[in-house]
Amino acid sequence: MKSGYRLGIDLGGTLVKLALVGPAGRVVSLKEVETVLNPRDLISRLKRAAEPWRLKGLRGTGVGVAGDVDPVKGAVRFAPNLKWKNVPIRSLLRKAGFPAPVHVENDATAAAWGAYHGELKKRTENLIVLTLGTGVGGGLVLDRRLYRGSTGTAGELGHITVDPGGPLCGCGNRGCLEAYLGGIHLVRWAKAEMLRRKRKAPADLTPFSLFQAARRGDPAARALWNRAGWALGIGLASLINIFNPDTILLTGGVAGAHPLFLPAARREIAKRAFLTPRRAVFLRVFPQSKNLGVIGAALLIP
Amino acid sequence: MKSGYRLGIDLGGTLVKLALVGPAGRVVSLKEVETVLNPRDLISRLKRAAEPWRLKGLRGTGVGVAGDVDPVKGAVRFAPNLKWKNVPIRSLLRKAGFPAPVHVENDATAAAWGAYHGELKKRTENLIVLTLGTGVGGGLVLDRRLYRGSTGTAGELGHITVDPGGPLCGCGNRGCLEAYLGGIHLVRWAKAEMLRRKRKAPADLTPFSLFQAARRGDPAARALWNRAGWALGIGLASLINIFNPDTILLTGGVAGAHPLFLPAARREIAKRAFLTPRRAVFLRVFPQSKNLGVIGAALLIP
Repeated sequence: MKSGYRLGIDLGGTLVKLALVGPAGRVVSLKEVETVLNPRDLISRLKRAAEPWRLKGLRGTGVGVAGDVDPVKGAVRFAPNLKWKNVPIRSLLRKAGFPAPVHVENDATAAAWGAYHGELKKRTENLIVLTLGTGVGGGLVLDRRLYRGSTGTAGELGHITVDPGGPLCGCGNRGCLEAYLGGIHLVRWAKAEMLRRKRKAPADLTPFSLFQAARRGDPAARALWNRAGWALGIGLASLINIFNPDTILLTGGVAGAHPLFLPAARREIAKRAFLTPRRAVFLRVFPQSKNLGVIGAALLIP
Repeated sequence: MKSGYRLGIDLGGTLVKLALVGPAGRVVSLKEVETVLNPRDLISRLKRAAEPWRLKGLRGTGVGVAGDVDPVKGAVRFAPNLKWKNVPIRSLLRKAGFPAPVHVENDATAAAWGAYHGELKKRTENLIVLTLGTGVGGGLVLDRRLYRGSTGTAGELGHITVDPGGPLCGCGNRGCLEAYLGGIHLVRWAKAEMLRRKRKAPADLTPFSLFQAARRGDPAARALWNRAGWALGIGLASLINIFNPDTILLTGGVAGAHPLFLPAARREIAKRAFLTPRRAVFLRVFPQSKNLGVIGAALLIP
C-alpha cells in the first residue's frame, strides 16, 4: 500500500529544493542541492539527496521547473536558467528510480497549488500567485482548480506588457512586468542609474542591497522601487479586471521588499482597476521561506 | 414536462435582442426591441414581444447585460449604457411572468458561452472572446467551463492597460484597450485627428464610415485602424501569455473591420507573445450576425 507521503522537487537555476511532503502538505524533511546544468548529473545528485527518504514507499514525485514545461509529456521544452531544451525530465527521473507517477509542471504554477492547499487552506476560490525572484513567474488557481492552459504554459504573468515602449525584457519583448520587477532587471536599472549620476556601482549589487539602500533613504534606490511598484500596480490592475480574483499572493525573494513597492502598486490599482473586483480582492505577501513551490510540486500527485 | 426551448435576452444600450432558442443552441425565432431606460417599461416591452412564444412551456430565461452584473443575486450592479444602478432584473422578470429560472450574466460572458456551444461546437478547451462594439467586452471559457470570477465581473478584457500614458477611457483609466478599439473612441480619435489636419469632420462619423474611408485609402483613417490593431496586438499578446488559449474569437460590429486592424495586431503578437502559446492559438473572427450573445444567454439555463 502507498503511503500518504510524496516527493517534491523545485528545480531552480541556482538551487534545487527537495522535500518529503506529508498528507496535508506538511514538509517532513527538506534538502537543498546546488544546480548543475547537465540533466543526468543533476538527477544523480538529487537521487543521492533523496535516497534516505525510502523512495519506494512514496506516492509519487512532483517537479516544478522554472521554464516552459509540457505537463502531458512530462518534458521541459525550454528552461533558460538551466540552459535546457527538450529535456524529458519525467522519463529521466523514472529511469533513475524516482517514485512514479512523476508529474512535471512550471514552478510558479506549482507554487500556486502549494499556496492554495498549504498556507491558504483552500480558503480561496480564485487565486493569482506572482513569484518575484530573478524573473517574475505566475500561477493560477481558478474555480479551485489549477489552470494550465492549452499547452501547459498559462500564467506567464511576468510577461504581461506594462508599457509597450518600456525596457527590454529577457524574452525579447519591451516593457514586460518582469523588465521592471525581476531581480536581474532591478540590478541592471540601478547600475545604469548610478552611471547616469556618475557614481560607481558596487560590484555586489543585489535586490536585497537595493532594498537596504532604499531603507537608508538613498534616492536612486527609492526611485527604483517606486518604479517597480508602479509597473506591478499596472499589471495587477489588468489582472484584477481580467480575473476578478479573491486573492493575489506575492512570494519569492523580491517580495520581501514589499514595504517599498506596494504603496506605488496600490496607487495604480486604485486608479486603474474596476471598483467591484477591486473591493473583492485581498493582496497578500508570503515570504519565500514558506516553500510553496516544493510543497505544490509534491501535491500535484493525487 | 419542460421543453428543450429557452428564452434568451441580450440587453444592449440601443437594442434588445430576444430569441427563442432550441436544444442545440439553434435560434428558432428572433426579435429586436428598442431599448428604453426605465426597467419596468423595458420589461413590459419585452413581455409583449416574447408573449407569442408561449412562455409557460419554456425551460427558463437567460439574460446578458452590458455592464457589471451580480449573477448570484441576479442583479445589475452598474450598466453605464442603460444608466442602471442596482436593478434587480431577475426578480423584475419573474414578477412579469418570464419563465423561471432566470439567469443574469454579463453580455460578453454570455457571448463566450454562446460561441462555445454554438459556432465552435465545443471544439475548444480554452476560449477568449472579445466583443468589439461601442465598448470592448470579454468572456472566458476555461477548461470548458464559463469563468465568472469571484463576484461575476471577470473578463473585463477591454480594460487591460495597453499603454499607461495612453488616451483616457470611459472607465477613468488611461490607455485601456477599449480607449483604442471601442467604437466611441475610434470616432473621437478620428474627429481630433481631422481637427489637427484642419479638415472638417462629417457629423455622421461611425466606425463603419471610418472603415470605408480607410478602404478608399484615406491616410488618417488608415492610421486609426493601424493604431487600433497595435493596441489590440499588445492586449492579445498579454492574454496569450496569461491564458495559453487555443482560440481567441473577435466578434461585434467593429470586428467587421478586421482586414484593416489585424495585420498590425499580428505584428505585435509576433513580437510580444511567447512562442509555445503563440503557436497553440487560433485567432478567429465571427460577424455580429451570429447572435452569440442571445444564444449564450439562453444556454446559461441548464
